[in-house]
Amino acid sequence: MINAANIAEMNDKFQSMQPRAILAEVFSVFPQAAVSFSGAEDVALVVMAKKLNPAVRVFTLDTGRLHPETYRFIEQVREQYSLEIEFLYPDTAAVQAFTREKGLYSFYRDGHEQCCGIRKTEPLRRKLAHVDAWITGQRRDQSPTRAQVPVAQVDSVFAAQGRSLLKFNPLANWSSQQVWEYIRMFELPYNALHDRGFTSIGCEPCTKAIGPNQHEREGRWWWEEATAKECGLHKINIDSLAD
Amino acid sequence: MINAANIAEMNDKFQSMQPRAILAEVFSVFPQAAVSFSGAEDVALVVMAKKLNPAVRVFTLDTGRLHPETYRFIEQVREQYSLEIEFLYPDTAAVQAFTREKGLYSFYRDGHEQCCGIRKTEPLRRKLAHVDAWITGQRRDQSPTRAQVPVAQVDSVFAAQGRSLLKFNPLANWSSQQVWEYIRMFELPYNALHDRGFTSIGCEPCTKAIGPNQHEREGRWWWEEATAKECGLHKINIDSLAD
Amino acid sequence: MINAANIAEMNDKFQSMQPRAILAEVFSVFPQAAVSFSGAEDVALVVMAKKLNPAVRVFTLDTGRLHPETYRFIEQVREQYSLEIEFLYPDTAAVQAFTREKGLYSFYRDGHEQCCGIRKTEPLRRKLAHVDAWITGQRRDQSPTRAQVPVAQVDSVFAAQGRSLLKFNPLANWSSQQVWEYIRMFELPYNALHDRGFTSIGCEPCTKAIGPNQHEREGRWWWEEATAKECGLHKINIDSLAD
Amino acid sequence: MINAANIAEMNDKFQSMQPRAILAEVFSVFPQAAVSFSGAEDVALVVMAKKLNPAVRVFTLDTGRLHPETYRFIEQVREQYSLEIEFLYPDTAAVQAFTREKGLYSFYRDGHEQCCGIRKTEPLRRKLAHVDAWITGQRRDQSPTRAQVPVAQVDSVFAAQGRSLLKFNPLANWSSQQVWEYIRMFELPYNALHDRGFTSIGCEPCTKAIGPNQHEREGRWWWEEATAKECGLHKINIDSLAD
Repeated sequence: MINAANIAEMNDKFQSMQPRAILAEVFSVFPQAAVSFSGAEDVALVVMAKKLNPAVRVFTLDTGRLHPETYRFIEQVREQYSLEIEFLYPDTAAVQAFTREKGLYSFYRDGHEQCCGIRKTEPLRRKLAHVDAWITGQRRDQSPTRAQVPVAQVDSVFAAQGRSLLKFNPLANWSSQQVWEYIRMFELPYNALHDRGFTSIGCEPCTKAIGPNQHEREGRWWWEEATAKECGLHKINIDSLAD
Repeated sequence: MINAANIAEMNDKFQSMQPRAILAEVFSVFPQAAVSFSGAEDVALVVMAKKLNPAVRVFTLDTGRLHPETYRFIEQVREQYSLEIEFLYPDTAAVQAFTREKGLYSFYRDGHEQCCGIRKTEPLRRKLAHVDAWITGQRRDQSPTRAQVPVAQVDSVFAAQGRSLLKFNPLANWSSQQVWEYIRMFELPYNALHDRGFTSIGCEPCTKAIGPNQHEREGRWWWEEATAKECGLHKINIDSLAD
Repeated sequence: MINAANIAEMNDKFQSMQPRAILAEVFSVFPQAAVSFSGAEDVALVVMAKKLNPAVRVFTLDTGRLHPETYRFIEQVREQYSLEIEFLYPDTAAVQAFTREKGLYSFYRDGHEQCCGIRKTEPLRRKLAHVDAWITGQRRDQSPTRAQVPVAQVDSVFAAQGRSLLKFNPLANWSSQQVWEYIRMFELPYNALHDRGFTSIGCEPCTKAIGPNQHEREGRWWWEEATAKECGLHKINIDSLAD
Repeated sequence: MINAANIAEMNDKFQSMQPRAILAEVFSVFPQAAVSFSGAEDVALVVMAKKLNPAVRVFTLDTGRLHPETYRFIEQVREQYSLEIEFLYPDTAAVQAFTREKGLYSFYRDGHEQCCGIRKTEPLRRKLAHVDAWITGQRRDQSPTRAQVPVAQVDSVFAAQGRSLLKFNPLANWSSQQVWEYIRMFELPYNALHDRGFTSIGCEPCTKAIGPNQHEREGRWWWEEATAKECGLHKINIDSLAD
């Protein structure tokens, strides 16, 4: 069993386990857990999940602003692994009102929060309202905001009122190096942007290639402060930093 | 006056008029006419319209699959001309159901009609339901399906029940050459893709650069027959060909 | 027979002949004629020549500044048609002295003549000193400087002292359209740059993609006057314009 | 004094010194030492050298196959620092004979040694025949073949007969990280390829971008074994590994 009551205990136990074993245990309790796929190196998580759980439920937040390469990559994974992927879209009225008022690049002026809120957070919230557990590819080495990411946690940010929602980050303790060894060893497909200097990949206007010896997070929301670089999906990370 | 009753007559009159004069006459009757902007060389139409009618109503169908270059260009036009642009988005539930079932590239297998239907036609229909007249940058030389495009017509395809809708194509008789002379002479901004071999520009997966001496329409829906190459917006063109 | 004495007569005769027939007649007299290949759409000429004359002698002026795509394309043609291609290089000392004094982009400041002189004209002169006839892909529609290009001419510019040199331009009367129909109909390979907006292709710093409805010559030496746009290879064209 | 007799001693002393101090000492003995510039991150060395020694002698091996971006970058450095750069070219006859026989990409079939020999090693040998000391940007962390690179050494490979030649690698003990901190802190210009996934940069056909967490040397001569990846310039490294 894994539940809100014993989550700290489970998290302790998971610290010494490999992603595959963690995933197996999570699926044994929550076979319908929703796996988030961003179209980047979290392909490692998605493929692992599919192998363990052929009926795995995968979703992608299609913000409408992803790179063409990312759309092609997600489709490639969908086809190659016969994966059913649910694409989640912004609310029509909300995104229309937002862009009519502020145009297509307001985030460069007043921060990414509003845009992420409409294009990612709200669709995710809609999705998670009907879910008991979700699984992400977050890692501690991705950014300062993720340095404390637990393997298992109660997700108080996205839980619908009166419901419990658990969040699992099986790759939390893996390094970027380990994820890429996995991708290369098992010859997983990967986003073509990774061969053009991109490490972290999000929406097209908010992602750029990084140079030699730069940290992957320097390629995201580079006009903002490092400690605020979360898109809302993982706002719980920011909240916990603020403690 | 221009109305459904005298539209054929108006169309005859417009044949010998320049786009600017046509636009001026249309705006004198329909100051709130909605101008469609695709982010391509129809920038000529949009800028002409803005100069004649500072309060012009411009809309763009943001399918969620446009090129990053197109998004940047539309924003550039929005800012440079202090233009208010309304971005129209697909219905959330419809696009979610569609992509969940068929993935992101079904058009390559079963044609572009369904995808255009959801991402362009339906949002356009929603918009035109509240409009008396709309204005587009269509030209006769763009493709076989557009060879008969009139300057003024009754739009029976998008008219809401019990309403009259007029459609104006002020550039119908201009050649690509003339549009580009206008763009270059007045130094209008243009989509960066035009400097990389793109002539006609639509959604990213359905547009490609053309080679020397190819017709611009060869860069659109190239896996389909030339006579079916309309996206639904201008279905009235296909209907009229079928007569 | 074709020789300096009857060249005007031959040129008259060639006016009404197709490139293939012209080439056949030229090779019947000069089987060792040197065919110039620039790595652009003159692939049509090279393939035609190879089919007529399997031992055809092809040369390319490798200026050291061609596009990577052009090098790859030339190699592709070399391999696909089992073609022997002679690559001609600038004189080591000349190019060293030139770049040491002026750097790598002096042509943007003082014109392309000196650079073309060292990287193209001199190596070509070296080559043509031992040749009786050469064949190029020049066409009248390529630029104002080529509007008078004959099919057959005496090449007084490159003839070594005391020797006669003939120059043949079998495509002179073909349009760009016809060359591309040939390339597409026979599915010849072509330079990848042609799919990215490039029509005319020369050295990388001196070539750019053109936009819709621009003439191909606008993509070459765009900072100079249209009537001076020859690289020295075909200086005879300029000379004849000056008559 | 630094000479062939005390070079081991000097090398010991240099181990604990920073690149700038090493360079200063080398220039105090050899003000005319030739600094090699590849158009990559060794811009750090070149700028350091120029600041210490305004009359510094810089050379670049222009193989005729560098990336357009590299040519533009070298010119940018040349202009920004008023640097005199000597570009060294392959011997005309040698490169003509080589490409006529083997085409433009023989290295993919039979290794890069012959091509590097003609395009890099021979021109370098020509240059170094008249030089007492040369300075490079080699670092130990660049590849297995460079793991033992000393700061100062006798260059027995390139010394002309009867002459002594010293080679200095002031960055030998710096990491890639340190070089890039230097470039970023002092806002040096850098090759645009570094923003597209390229770390190590050489000739265009023999260089590629690397993916996340790959070693920079994986982007060079990737079809060959890691322990043979030297281009001939630094053959002394291979020789010393063979000891």
